[in-house]
Amino acid sequence: MLDWESIFATRSSRMKASEIRELLKLLDRPDIISFAGGIPDPALFPAEEFKAAYAGIFGGPTVSAALQYSVSEGYLPLRQWLVGQMAEIGIACEAENILITSGSQQALDYLGKLFLSPNDTALVTWPTYLGALQAFNAYEPTYDQLTTAGNRTPASYRQAATDAGGRVKFAYLSADFSNPTGETVGLEDRNRLIDLADELDIAIIEDGAYQSLRYDGQPVPPILSLEIARKGSIDETRTIYCGSFSKTLAPGLRVGFVVGATPVIRKLVLMKQAADLHSSTINQMAICDVAEKGFDAQVSKIASVYSQRRDSMLTALSTHMPDGTTWTKPEGGMFVWVTLPTGMDGTALLAKSLETAKVAFVPGRAFFADGSGANTLRLSFSCANDAMIEEGISRLGRLVRSEMVALAA
Amino acid sequence: MLDWESIFATRSSRMKASEIRELLKLLDRPDIISFAGGIPDPALFPAEEFKAAYAGIFGGPTVSAALQYSVSEGYLPLRQWLVGQMAEIGIACEAENILITSGSQQALDYLGKLFLSPNDTALVTWPTYLGALQAFNAYEPTYDQLTTAGNRTPASYRQAATDAGGRVKFAYLSADFSNPTGETVGLEDRNRLIDLADELDIAIIEDGAYQSLRYDGQPVPPILSLEIARKGSIDETRTIYCGSFSKTLAPGLRVGFVVGATPVIRKLVLMKQAADLHSSTINQMAICDVAEKGFDAQVSKIASVYSQRRDSMLTALSTHMPDGTTWTKPEGGMFVWVTLPTGMDGTALLAKSLETAKVAFVPGRAFFADGSGANTLRLSFSCANDAMIEEGISRLGRLVRSEMVALAA
Repeated sequence: MLDWESIFATRSSRMKASEIRELLKLLDRPDIISFAGGIPDPALFPAEEFKAAYAGIFGGPTVSAALQYSVSEGYLPLRQWLVGQMAEIGIACEAENILITSGSQQALDYLGKLFLSPNDTALVTWPTYLGALQAFNAYEPTYDQLTTAGNRTPASYRQAATDAGGRVKFAYLSADFSNPTGETVGLEDRNRLIDLADELDIAIIEDGAYQSLRYDGQPVPPILSLEIARKGSIDETRTIYCGSFSKTLAPGLRVGFVVGATPVIRKLVLMKQAADLHSSTINQMAICDVAEKGFDAQVSKIASVYSQRRDSMLTALSTHMPDGTTWTKPEGGMFVWVTLPTGMDGTALLAKSLETAKVAFVPGRAFFADGSGANTLRLSFSCANDAMIEEGISRLGRLVRSEMVALAA
Repeated sequence: MLDWESIFATRSSRMKASEIRELLKLLDRPDIISFAGGIPDPALFPAEEFKAAYAGIFGGPTVSAALQYSVSEGYLPLRQWLVGQMAEIGIACEAENILITSGSQQALDYLGKLFLSPNDTALVTWPTYLGALQAFNAYEPTYDQLTTAGNRTPASYRQAATDAGGRVKFAYLSADFSNPTGETVGLEDRNRLIDLADELDIAIIEDGAYQSLRYDGQPVPPILSLEIARKGSIDETRTIYCGSFSKTLAPGLRVGFVVGATPVIRKLVLMKQAADLHSSTINQMAICDVAEKGFDAQVSKIASVYSQRRDSMLTALSTHMPDGTTWTKPEGGMFVWVTLPTGMDGTALLAKSLETAKVAFVPGRAFFADGSGANTLRLSFSCANDAMIEEGISRLGRLVRSEMVALAA
């Protein structure tokens, strides 16, 4: 038998099983209250609208086109709809600035592939989206901590990247209701990030997967929109915006998108052509139909349900979590991020929790490129009803309290 | 403005626009008879069956699952159906040996990603599938000519790969009705290839995209089936088989698959998870439904139409092409490969043909990793009716004849 490991590319050693993925299996155990998954509530899918969309395709003149190969750029009417959608959040662009991808996860993979040679540096927040780290890992980068807190100079980033054997290529972040923390980057920090990227002459990858899911507070303009306002045109910007229909319409169709300067999109189109030709034609048509007919109504429906669940979770955390623990207060998205006292370990807590409290969550360490963050947890409220939230957080609070007592002893 | 080229990864310099892709634009010009595309005839899509499949999904209990995230491995009932299908062609495997991909193009991309570090060597036939070269190029390999003609020893492959700065990782080939030549690799050559791969200790990537489309002649067992017969189990083999529903059911759903030893599939699953999470859930369900209910009938329907077109094309070539030109006699697939006299150039011929004869085809050079093959052409008969074939080949024959006269003068 072939010794496969010996002929795999060096990059393959960085492809490892995901903690979240293993945990998703727990969702099926009826005795577990799960805050682990980061998936949308299927009860909120616009199933009737999709049913009508597919029926319409099969009843109309585009059925052959829907089943046939199509262009790598993506379905033009969908890209045109997105042009209007982007304009509403301050991103003036043309269809040529948009590539349709198979979910925004694929956009992250392609952007890693486009920018990262081995040992190049990607700047990411501590913590960051685990899926971004997994996508980028295939291209063997080094990570450095993206922060606008003022303790890092452009020169220090450059030096660290040179020491690692490459150069800084981009800063990646989720600016709105990020996975895993639920937090939003403020206007001032967004502007500072553009300054930093200008000084380092690098790209910014803005992950907008949760951008539409704001429940309260004031919207902050996307980084790409701020940069367009500064520089006059999307083709003068360095920010590449990734979006998704997975959190708003449905993830099972695998439709996302990338918006950016024409030279970047052109190269990504060639990359997509070589990698999978194009995203599913029929699904792009179905997404386009459902989006055109009722995107805003669908987002409102989701927002009213998720905001209620977020409120329940924040209330339950206030009621049940012991002093010494803190958590974020997200204005949107699907996640609350809990910080336990230093010395506690989320992974050990999960093992205990599954056994005794029967509550699932994601230990935070996986979201840190440097392996720190042992005392953090990610809780998702998107698929839990109020009763589950109250009961689950109550049990989790008791467990954390008893662990804190044990730690202090 | 950012100097994008300066921060793209080195691999991006090998991502170039495809000749075929540019040519596809010609398909829309009504005055051109096109043998250029390699796409299936949309009139043969099982549209009614797909209509029923999607309607069934929306009318049944799996609608939420169809729209939701799913496992990276792929939809289990589809993988189970494929287990039965593979058994029919001598490939005994389990669902664990199968990964569903977004078309077999994605399988090629993932296999390049899995095996190729920069400067490693991929063995490919001269000519080979252009899309495979494009997929592999992203991982910066060197190519060497795969041949079982006896003029290359294992030692000579090893030495060439070492000289190129890496090692031989795999041999890639389409064994049945290949794109672009339409030819099938014989049993003896398949066995010799396994011997060669054993001696070099490399993988074999067997592209089975056209495998089901045999119109006459005796089926040759897939390389993977021959290796299983030799070694006792798929987990002892080094052949990785890529398949697709694009040529049999419909390409617009983007559903393909990879079959291979468990260690390879496990690694590819992790890669897919990081790269795009999973292929479209709803499309996998629809493909599964249509395949379960009538895959063989659909293949028979296609075969009867395409075989007639192949016959027409071979007849027309015999009638109209001048002495000194030769072409393949495919037993299946979509392509005939024409070799013109040495000194003629397919690209120059195409330019002239579009202007005067109004016939489109693909110049063969793009399919050669070494840039040779200037005097070759690929003709596709899949989307042309008998009258178009007779008229188009007649015009092409006249043009070739006049060019041969000019060349001799």
